[in-house]
Amino acid sequence: MFVPLHPFVDLNEQEVEQIGSDASPAERVQRAMNCLPLTLEKSVDDSNSSSFRRWTIADYSRAYSSGEITPRKVAEQFINAVHESSRAALPMSFFINYDAEDILKQATESTLRYERGDPISALDGVPIAIKDEIDCSPYPTTGGTKWLHKVRPCTGDACCVMRLRSCGAIIVGKTNMHELGAGTSGINPHYGTTRNPYHPNKIAGGSSSGSAAVVSAGLCPAALGVDGGGSVRMPASLCGVIGFKPTFGRIPHTGVLPLNWTVGMVGILAGTLEDALIVYAAISGQLPSHEPTILPPKLLFPLLNSTNPMSEIKFARYGEWFNDCSDEIRICCSNALHLLCEHYKWKTVEVTIPEIESMRLAHYLTIGSECTTSLSSALEKLDFAELGWDARVALRVYGAFNSKEYIKAQKMRNRQMQIHKNIFAKADVIVAPTTGVTAYSIFDDALKTGELDYINGAALVRYQISGNFLGLPAVTVGYDKEGLPIGLQFIGKPWSEPTLMHIAFAMQALCISHYRKPKVFYNLLHKN
Amino acid sequence: MFVPLHPFVDLNEQEVEQIGSDASPAERVQRAMNCLPLTLEKSVDDSNSSSFRRWTIADYSRAYSSGEITPRKVAEQFINAVHESSRAALPMSFFINYDAEDILKQATESTLRYERGDPISALDGVPIAIKDEIDCSPYPTTGGTKWLHKVRPCTGDACCVMRLRSCGAIIVGKTNMHELGAGTSGINPHYGTTRNPYHPNKIAGGSSSGSAAVVSAGLCPAALGVDGGGSVRMPASLCGVIGFKPTFGRIPHTGVLPLNWTVGMVGILAGTLEDALIVYAAISGQLPSHEPTILPPKLLFPLLNSTNPMSEIKFARYGEWFNDCSDEIRICCSNALHLLCEHYKWKTVEVTIPEIESMRLAHYLTIGSECTTSLSSALEKLDFAELGWDARVALRVYGAFNSKEYIKAQKMRNRQMQIHKNIFAKADVIVAPTTGVTAYSIFDDALKTGELDYINGAALVRYQISGNFLGLPAVTVGYDKEGLPIGLQFIGKPWSEPTLMHIAFAMQALCISHYRKPKVFYNLLHKN
Repeated sequence: MFVPLHPFVDLNEQEVEQIGSDASPAERVQRAMNCLPLTLEKSVDDSNSSSFRRWTIADYSRAYSSGEITPRKVAEQFINAVHESSRAALPMSFFINYDAEDILKQATESTLRYERGDPISALDGVPIAIKDEIDCSPYPTTGGTKWLHKVRPCTGDACCVMRLRSCGAIIVGKTNMHELGAGTSGINPHYGTTRNPYHPNKIAGGSSSGSAAVVSAGLCPAALGVDGGGSVRMPASLCGVIGFKPTFGRIPHTGVLPLNWTVGMVGILAGTLEDALIVYAAISGQLPSHEPTILPPKLLFPLLNSTNPMSEIKFARYGEWFNDCSDEIRICCSNALHLLCEHYKWKTVEVTIPEIESMRLAHYLTIGSECTTSLSSALEKLDFAELGWDARVALRVYGAFNSKEYIKAQKMRNRQMQIHKNIFAKADVIVAPTTGVTAYSIFDDALKTGELDYINGAALVRYQISGNFLGLPAVTVGYDKEGLPIGLQFIGKPWSEPTLMHIAFAMQALCISHYRKPKVFYNLLHKN
Repeated sequence: MFVPLHPFVDLNEQEVEQIGSDASPAERVQRAMNCLPLTLEKSVDDSNSSSFRRWTIADYSRAYSSGEITPRKVAEQFINAVHESSRAALPMSFFINYDAEDILKQATESTLRYERGDPISALDGVPIAIKDEIDCSPYPTTGGTKWLHKVRPCTGDACCVMRLRSCGAIIVGKTNMHELGAGTSGINPHYGTTRNPYHPNKIAGGSSSGSAAVVSAGLCPAALGVDGGGSVRMPASLCGVIGFKPTFGRIPHTGVLPLNWTVGMVGILAGTLEDALIVYAAISGQLPSHEPTILPPKLLFPLLNSTNPMSEIKFARYGEWFNDCSDEIRICCSNALHLLCEHYKWKTVEVTIPEIESMRLAHYLTIGSECTTSLSSALEKLDFAELGWDARVALRVYGAFNSKEYIKAQKMRNRQMQIHKNIFAKADVIVAPTTGVTAYSIFDDALKTGELDYINGAALVRYQISGNFLGLPAVTVGYDKEGLPIGLQFIGKPWSEPTLMHIAFAMQALCISHYRKPKVFYNLLHKN
């Protein structure tokens, strides 16, 4: 098997809501909303509160329905905020492209729907940003480069974007990313480096840097990224938001740059797990025409409003792996896991995951070979001076792999699939830190050329690989006791998204009171 | 999709017998026997007859059961014949290894079973030869090399050999082959070049050269080969016997040298289509432990004794392809197809198969990359002086492919899968010549060094590729009006073996009276 597409097995998960795969995105969103607990009424503006929370999709929906504010007003405030962020002393570089006119047009249409009392779904009028690796009208798809959109014009919305639009969401532009997704820092010499809203002198992480940062900074409750080697989970973790990569094959790949099509897929960045579920409901489910018979016959959503916490969850914990990170991460993640097990009476089993470093190399070889294959005709004509320094090195390395090495990498994929199957016979999910280091400082030199930092890069990517190479679903939840974003990651069995979300939701409930407000933050629902 | 494993679709074929996949090989053989028409009583020895036919499995079975001859006697005559063939002025080089003692031991046991009136199946006591690419005790598996068995010892029977043994067949040794299966001539500088029983100064074809030649020369009614790029069908065609390559995944690959595991699989060489069906019954069906859920739930055998000929067969014929061969082949195959359509009222539809040459290159790249991957640790230590000249060149080329090229080849595989799906929407089978040239003369120089003949090689392999690269079932039937073996090939839909066999059987019925006796021929059932 070279594509990590797992035949569907009914996991008989507890506390789930079933929905047929023929439901429309808007219907699915409504069904997902029914699975959520009532949102807290505490607001971003509540200065008496010691804790912080971002506005959620439910907050937007409620504020629009009550007439407190209109999508048009939110869009105006969004445009002002992005404008302001790009003129700051440390420009945030959230977006590669955003079109004020297009945003206002969508917002006006949404406002009219609310005025008629006829919003399409809870996502109607909600700003959602799209990583610039995903096709989305009226924008080019640059992939973070200065040239790719010239040789591959964007001809319409990707399937996931089309689905969000059909729910009434306002697509607010194309977020910044690491060039070609070929790095983990989010440093982009062409479109500016996305800065971390918690620490504007530090990286946001990548490659979905802009999508993580816009959610962190309050510009959108959710954004889409693409996760080929942790590219959703790493920046989510560094920016203190939820990062969710479903099982391979769960979300149609149509309209996504084919940079790494057997390891990469669309993922979701969101302020809360609830919002990740809503966006997941909107965009997941294969296209009928593309649906191999081995895919799940229906979608399952976790009943997050259930009063029965899931019983008997068993975490697989690889001790050596848990320690292979900075002290602050080790302590923070160990405490979080301890707290979780204690609070819910869940258990941890110690496991060994062998050949992790070989798997990382095999994944790198695969992603590199796929990238250079899909770009081959463009690369023949490309002036390498158009690339950042790190992308130049990456593409040269990518092009140098032998077919024998590629096949051996795929054999490693099979072996690791078996190893992970054995682990999942003993435990429900694998738990690990999301990254081995937190956001690190940006060197000014790197801003103009791009940067290759193999040490930090390896530490960031360390815990990502099985999610991509083996197609497993994974979610990162920020645990943030000291105000610094640190992610704890849960990696699940194929097609076990509901269980994974239940666990992430439980984790979020334990740490949500610790959340701090980022230094760069915009409150789009304020009324003045 | 990188492995051409087709999800099972019920084709609702006519005139078939169903059998559960849990039946034992001996039971399956019995069920296959029930599907056969009564064998002609005319014999090889009948000098009054103008036509020729080889002894069949049914002939052996009947002669043993009636006590006319014993398996022991046949084994002795087999050993004498092989000995004689190797001492001829033009030595035939049928086998790389055969062990007289082991053969006589098996034959003695079989003789005792017949004496007790308790033979295991119709295959009991029937000599069957195994290509030296398939593990088989007590022999090493050389793959036609002087070194591979030293680094990869054979530790027991391959699954297909085990199944034949369980039916009582006498495994008579390991047939000669092109070194590493890396060529199509069967010229082997290490173990001698297998000669064509019809023309001992010409090639037998390869890589399953010995398996084709032993069947052609009457030493075995059937033999096993491995077909990675026509390696069963080409020599079968050149030596005037049936060559049958089932759908990818139909026969377990366990115990076969992993030289090209996504394109190669065990195939059958036999004197008649009936005998190919019997051996197919014995060895096909996946191992329960290996069975992916997408494989067929049962085996289907064609009812060759049915009085209803299959109606409404539609052949897809690619005109340009049909003409891209020597005149004698073009005329012979065109006449055969015409005769077939006329006799059975079957139809021909003209189709175009685009990008055939690209597919050939993509297949070559795939087979080469897989071969060099599986041999990589051995090749590191190998002295290239141990290889024939052609194998040296092949391995150097195989090792030079880039991972990008390999991935592009797999994309071509997907595209051709779709192209062929469209063809099969219009027709039941594709019909083509088996090879573009017939057996060509052996140059003495080549005997010592091996030979690279790209022109003849390309002409031989031209019509083979879709069977391997796309995993389609294919069968070649000799049409032999002038006494020269020329094969007509039928390429079927995935899992359509019964239809394919029905058609091949009809073809055989039309041309069987033209069969000529090869110059080198042994009659193992003679009684003196």
